[in-house]
Amino acid sequence: MLLLHLSDVDEAGWAKAFAEALGPYPVVRRGDAFDPADVRYIFVWKPKADAFDGLNNLAAVLSLGAGVDALMKHPNLPDAPIVRFVDADLSQRMSDYVVAHVTMHHRQFSRFQADQKARRWSQFYPPAASETTVGIMGMGVLGQDAVKRLLPLGFTVRSWSRTPKAIEGVEGFAGSEQFDTFLQGTDILVNLLPLTPETTGILNRDTFSKLRRDRLEGGPAIINAARGGHQREADIVAALADGTLGAASLDVFEVEPLPQSSPLWEIPNCYITPHTAAISSIPSGVKYFTRMIQDHEAGQPLINVVDRKLGY
Amino acid sequence: MLLLHLSDVDEAGWAKAFAEALGPYPVVRRGDAFDPADVRYIFVWKPKADAFDGLNNLAAVLSLGAGVDALMKHPNLPDAPIVRFVDADLSQRMSDYVVAHVTMHHRQFSRFQADQKARRWSQFYPPAASETTVGIMGMGVLGQDAVKRLLPLGFTVRSWSRTPKAIEGVEGFAGSEQFDTFLQGTDILVNLLPLTPETTGILNRDTFSKLRRDRLEGGPAIINAARGGHQREADIVAALADGTLGAASLDVFEVEPLPQSSPLWEIPNCYITPHTAAISSIPSGVKYFTRMIQDHEAGQPLINVVDRKLGY
Repeated sequence: MLLLHLSDVDEAGWAKAFAEALGPYPVVRRGDAFDPADVRYIFVWKPKADAFDGLNNLAAVLSLGAGVDALMKHPNLPDAPIVRFVDADLSQRMSDYVVAHVTMHHRQFSRFQADQKARRWSQFYPPAASETTVGIMGMGVLGQDAVKRLLPLGFTVRSWSRTPKAIEGVEGFAGSEQFDTFLQGTDILVNLLPLTPETTGILNRDTFSKLRRDRLEGGPAIINAARGGHQREADIVAALADGTLGAASLDVFEVEPLPQSSPLWEIPNCYITPHTAAISSIPSGVKYFTRMIQDHEAGQPLINVVDRKLGY
Repeated sequence: MLLLHLSDVDEAGWAKAFAEALGPYPVVRRGDAFDPADVRYIFVWKPKADAFDGLNNLAAVLSLGAGVDALMKHPNLPDAPIVRFVDADLSQRMSDYVVAHVTMHHRQFSRFQADQKARRWSQFYPPAASETTVGIMGMGVLGQDAVKRLLPLGFTVRSWSRTPKAIEGVEGFAGSEQFDTFLQGTDILVNLLPLTPETTGILNRDTFSKLRRDRLEGGPAIINAARGGHQREADIVAALADGTLGAASLDVFEVEPLPQSSPLWEIPNCYITPHTAAISSIPSGVKYFTRMIQDHEAGQPLINVVDRKLGY
C-alpha cells in the first residue's frame, strides 16, 4: 500500500495519477480508511508531526523534493530508507533557472537596466562567455546537469564539492582547504549544495569577498537555487550595497514566504523568485516512484537512498 | 597596401595591430601620405562619402561589420568584391546576447520582476525549456551558432530563412509561403536576418499577431539583434501595450542612438541595450583579415564575399 502525505501541493492530483499508474496496488490518502500496518511506502512533502504514526511496516519513505533537509529534521522520522526524487525533468527545470540567471549577470543586465531607466545610451561590451567563469557549488545530479548546459554556451566552469569529482571540462575543487582557491577564480557563484550543518550559512560576507572582482563590471554575482539556510541575508544586503557583490539571484530565503519587511525586495540588483526555480511535475514524479515501487516489490534494491550521516 | 578607414571605433588600435600582424606589408590610415593607386585593400566601418576616392586598384573592400546593409548604400561604393567579417568570437558574443534574452523571457522575467516590485510572493512555474519553442529568423553563421547554443539547453528550435536550410535538430521553414506556419509555432522570436528590401520592417504587428500565444504567460516575446530597419517601433509599442507581445529585447533601433523621446525607454517589459549585442574584437578581426590578405596575395580566392544582388 502507498500512502500519500503531501502538504501545500495538489495531493488529490498526485493520488489520481498514482492510482492510474499502479493499477491494482492500493493507493490511499490521509483521512481514507486503511490499516497503517499495511502501508509499505509513504510519499511525503512537508509531513506533519503525526505523519508516520502507526506505520510500523514501512519499506521506504519517498520524498517529493530533491532536498531532504527539512524531512531529516522531522521529530518522528522512521528508520526506513529515505528515497530522494531525482529525475531529468526536475534537473532540466533547475538548469533552466540557473542558465537564465548566469547569462543575465554575465550580460550585465543590472547595468543596462539602470541605463535604460536613465534613458542613457552608453555603449559597453560584456566579456565573451569564454572569458567568464561560473563556479558551481555542489556536483550532484543538479550540479552536473547545469555543467552540461553551461559548457556548450562557452563558459569556463569550475566546481566545488565535499569530495573530489572528476567532470569532463570542469576544473574541480573539493573540501574546505580548496574553497578559497575555488572562489578566487569565480565570477558567478551558483549554489546547488545540499543543506547540511557544514553548508549552512556558506553564502556569507567572507565567501563573497573572495570572489574574482576584475572581470564583471560592478562585481561578482551569486545565484542561490538550493536552500535559504545556505545564505546570510543581512550579509547579502550589505554586500550588494557596498559593491562586494554586483548582483544576486535568490530563489530561496531564510524565511519563506520572504517577509514583507525584508530589505531584499527593494534592492534593484537583487533578483527574487518565490522558490519556483524547479518543481517536480506529477507525470515525471509518478513515473519515477511507480517504477521504484514495482521494482522494489519485485525484489530490486532501492535507488537514490539518502545517506543519513551525510544528510543528503 | 592596406588602408584603414574606420569611424567611431579605435582606428589607431586596429592600425597598430594590423601593422604588427602584416609585417612588411604596408598599412596606412587616412591622413597618412600614400599614393591611393597603391591601395589594394580598404578596411572600413561607417565609411565617409570620400572614403573610396582615387582607389582605382582595389582588390577588395573589407568590412569590419558582419552586416553590410549600410555599406551597400554608400554612394561611391567601388566595384571591388566586398568581404564580410565572419568569425567565431563575434558569433559567440552574439549568441551570448541571444541566449541571455531567450532564457530571460522563457523564465518569465517580466512577471517575476513585477511581483518583486509589489513585494508579492506568487508561486508560478515557467514551462520547461523543452516545452518552449524558439524561432530563429536567419540561418547564416550567426543563426547557426545560436542553434548550437540553444539545443543543448533543451529548447525546441525552428528556423526561417530565404532558402531552405537543413540544420540537425531544427525544423526548417523557408520563403514567404512558410512564414505564417513558422510563426504559429514560435513562442520566442529571434531576428538574425540580414537587412534587405525583403526583410525591412518584418518585425511588425502582423508578424507579432501570428506568434503562438498559449505557452508563455503574458504572451510571446521578440528579440532583435540584427538591424533597426527590421522593426516597426510604433508596432512594438502598441503590441507590448495591448498584450500582443509579452516582452521585447531590442539591441537595435530605427534611429541610433535611440532618441530621448522614444516611448520604448519607459516600457517595463521592453529590454533595451545600446547596439552592444556583439562587437568584433581587434585580435580576432586582425587575425581574420591578415590571413585573408596574405592568402589572397598568394593567389587564393577571397572568402565570405557579399552577393551584391542579395545584399548580404
